Amino acid sequence: MRNLFLLLGAVAMLAIFTLAQDTGEASRAAIRTVIQDQQSAWNRHDLEAFMAGYWNSADLTFFSAAHEFKGWQAALDRYKNNYQSAGHEMGKLEFRNLQIEMLGRDSAFVRGEFHLTMSDGKTPHGLFTLVFRKFPEGWKIVHDHSAGE
Amino acid sequence: MRNLFLLLGAVAMLAIFTLAQDTGEASRAAIRTVIQDQQSAWNRHDLEAFMAGYWNSADLTFFSAAHEFKGWQAALDRYKNNYQSAGHEMGKLEFRNLQIEMLGRDSAFVRGEFHLTMSDGKTPHGLFTLVFRKFPEGWKIVHDHSAGE
Repeated sequence: MRNLFLLLGAVAMLAIFTLAQDTGEASRAAIRTVIQDQQSAWNRHDLEAFMAGYWNSADLTFFSAAHEFKGWQAALDRYKNNYQSAGHEMGKLEFRNLQIEMLGRDSAFVRGEFHLTMSDGKTPHGLFTLVFRKFPEGWKIVHDHSAGE
Repeated sequence: MRNLFLLLGAVAMLAIFTLAQDTGEASRAAIRTVIQDQQSAWNRHDLEAFMAGYWNSADLTFFSAAHEFKGWQAALDRYKNNYQSAGHEMGKLEFRNLQIEMLGRDSAFVRGEFHLTMSDGKTPHGLFTLVFRKFPEGWKIVHDHSAGE
């Protein structure tokens, strides 16, 4: 009888462990998809779809180098101004070296590099730190700190 | 009898809620102390004490604008090089507008501004994003993204 309890206990622990691991892997995969969808949206010049990766809230924060933009709308306006206004272009975007690290069941942070290739051959690039939270509608960026050169 | 169970249930839920809230507030206070200790250490020119706020690991990452420094030693070397080598000074450091946000029981991220005042009157300043994790030895920065001007 005691052996049966031990066996049941071991099976239960294994199930919990597997479940927890799955959650981490499933979450990382879901976050990776959000970022890949952003890259695809950027490269078909669809800024609204790109912005779907961000938390649509006035509390979203976006640090671009030493400047803070507060709220989803300000982040979109910044992108429109910097990449879609007269004399600007979106170029081709590639994210590289993504490191997705879980910080809890419903939170994670992502480190990575952005690389742009412009029609004049210039290649602006830099590093970013993203903080993700899981909402009922999915994983969203709640804070973006990007700095390039 | 049923009322007694309902009462006990309500008391238990209140206890759990209070405990969870306490953990958040206690954690935020602990993180704030780490950052204030860093500010004090900097202002007495004690870089080793300043670095005690960082995870002493090769896996610590430090993004300074578009440059990545990997590991605790590289972060310390960068500070020594930029603020203690010939022709450089540490100045007076002040952190402002700290926003400490919990991401789980053992993780948080912090947004804030750094302001330096140098002896020649210059005031380098910028924004930072810190990711904190709770270790047996306390709360430590595992990732720092700082960008100034």
